[in-house]
Amino acid sequence: MTAPPPVPPAVPSAAAPAASSPAGRRAAGRVVLAGAPLGRVTDASAGLAQALATTPLIAAEDTRRLHRLASDLGVAIAGRVLSFFEGNEQARVPQLISALRDGLDVLVVTDAGMPSVSDPGYRLVAAAIEAGLVVTALPGPSAVTTALAVSGLPVDRFCFEGFLPRKGGSRRRLLAELAGERRTMVFFESPHRIAESLSDLADALGADRPAAVCRELTKTYEEVVRGPLAELCDWAAGDVRGEITLVVAGRPDRSVAPAAGELAALVGAREQAGQSRKEAIAEVAATTGVAKRLVFDAVVSAKREGADAGGAAGRISD
Amino acid sequence: MTAPPPVPPAVPSAAAPAASSPAGRRAAGRVVLAGAPLGRVTDASAGLAQALATTPLIAAEDTRRLHRLASDLGVAIAGRVLSFFEGNEQARVPQLISALRDGLDVLVVTDAGMPSVSDPGYRLVAAAIEAGLVVTALPGPSAVTTALAVSGLPVDRFCFEGFLPRKGGSRRRLLAELAGERRTMVFFESPHRIAESLSDLADALGADRPAAVCRELTKTYEEVVRGPLAELCDWAAGDVRGEITLVVAGRPDRSVAPAAGELAALVGAREQAGQSRKEAIAEVAATTGVAKRLVFDAVVSAKREGADAGGAAGRISD
Repeated sequence: MTAPPPVPPAVPSAAAPAASSPAGRRAAGRVVLAGAPLGRVTDASAGLAQALATTPLIAAEDTRRLHRLASDLGVAIAGRVLSFFEGNEQARVPQLISALRDGLDVLVVTDAGMPSVSDPGYRLVAAAIEAGLVVTALPGPSAVTTALAVSGLPVDRFCFEGFLPRKGGSRRRLLAELAGERRTMVFFESPHRIAESLSDLADALGADRPAAVCRELTKTYEEVVRGPLAELCDWAAGDVRGEITLVVAGRPDRSVAPAAGELAALVGAREQAGQSRKEAIAEVAATTGVAKRLVFDAVVSAKREGADAGGAAGRISD
Repeated sequence: MTAPPPVPPAVPSAAAPAASSPAGRRAAGRVVLAGAPLGRVTDASAGLAQALATTPLIAAEDTRRLHRLASDLGVAIAGRVLSFFEGNEQARVPQLISALRDGLDVLVVTDAGMPSVSDPGYRLVAAAIEAGLVVTALPGPSAVTTALAVSGLPVDRFCFEGFLPRKGGSRRRLLAELAGERRTMVFFESPHRIAESLSDLADALGADRPAAVCRELTKTYEEVVRGPLAELCDWAAGDVRGEITLVVAGRPDRSVAPAAGELAALVGAREQAGQSRKEAIAEVAATTGVAKRLVFDAVVSAKREGADAGGAAGRISD
């Protein structure tokens, strides 16, 4: 008996061949990126359940978690399950590409949310595209869009930052950069770091900046705490547990332009990040809406004040 | 007969009362933001199907579409369905808040994707939070995360821009601002505007900037076209139809990424200045925009080449 190509019915049909899959690749398998529940199993789609049951090869961030998900969904996994996490991603990619070329679909499932958004998957996707293979998705939950929706903060524009750098210059530089950010910002954070991150964000963006800490989204102890960063710092001083997604409002557009000192700091942060002063001034002008000439003046007068302050300190010590 | 509080079983239990719902509001209803399929009905979650069947009040962006979704899911809607779209959102909010105060849960379903991400819902969420009511979610598909996942572009940081302003100064200003954007960018665009937007983006960001046009995601004619903006402009010159999500790579930190040798030298200089190698790699990654892993690889291969070169130099000097 000649087996039909292993295409599970719930999985999307191949995209228009010209664009995503060169001629002659019809028999190759597809990478299918599936969104997994953040907590509650009823957030899984019927398509995911069917793909778990029928896809010949499943690349799972945590194979035990995958088996538990399948069991909770009442699904028997027929295909082969391979672990696929940050530590073995690079080594797995050639193996998975080879299976795809042999005609096997590969279902990618992470612990929670959409694969390749701050999760393993990106390298496989890039390699599959490079190899001319079809990459498609079974969309599902994402902590990013869920947190944004319940935050109560504006969502017409937003940016996702992943985890803040843990410390040092790169953390300071990013925080300085985000001080000028006008989009609503989304961060992932671990429970034992959230207090420090809220405090650093309050310092960089202002204590009164509105924000929302989303804890254990979709789980039994789901909690969304909304308030100015300073209030959230107080809340986080207690014992915080569980998965956290943090949403922070962007800098309000003001009728009053940013103060000269703030403009100079924004230019300084960009220079430290390796830009030339000219580039930095142009960018700060573009992002703040302040004329380039005024940003330049702010940088010059900040330098002068820095020098004067040194002099003043000298006089005070007299 | 005293009816139990109308809490559908599939909908998440209330969040920890202290945070989201002041004392005395236990009997109030909750706003439940549900993610709707982008196309394929099998992308709907079991939780959404159950909520459609049991929630007493459903606010739907398009009521006919909602009834079709319910019918495709084999679900009978028992509750009341109200239209809730941009044009009547402001008028509907007080009515929905009043129903919530009366103890009715309100399920919010848009045409596709997560409510309040570039969709009606934000005003209701803001009003409900203001009124001390619980806002929670039944997470599901979003075109933003789906497009990012299949784009093949970096997703560790990204920003969502919604639709580009149609014309004039605000369009030019935003394009100029985005020329400096280093995150991967996601846009919604209509099929009859995509050619012009790709052309304007190519002018502002560079013709060689990598991007992906995602058309009809999860639908029968799903198509993902990836390439530099200039190539996508050529593609879009034809007859383009369907829903479009555009993903565009951010600005590389430099036109050419620093060579491995340069990266290794930067790390070496920082180590000599007293930083640990780990810190040095993190900082060089942050300042150059090169992934940490690649900086690490550069350091390792520089060491190896150093050893080889030493050997070679030895032989040459023989």
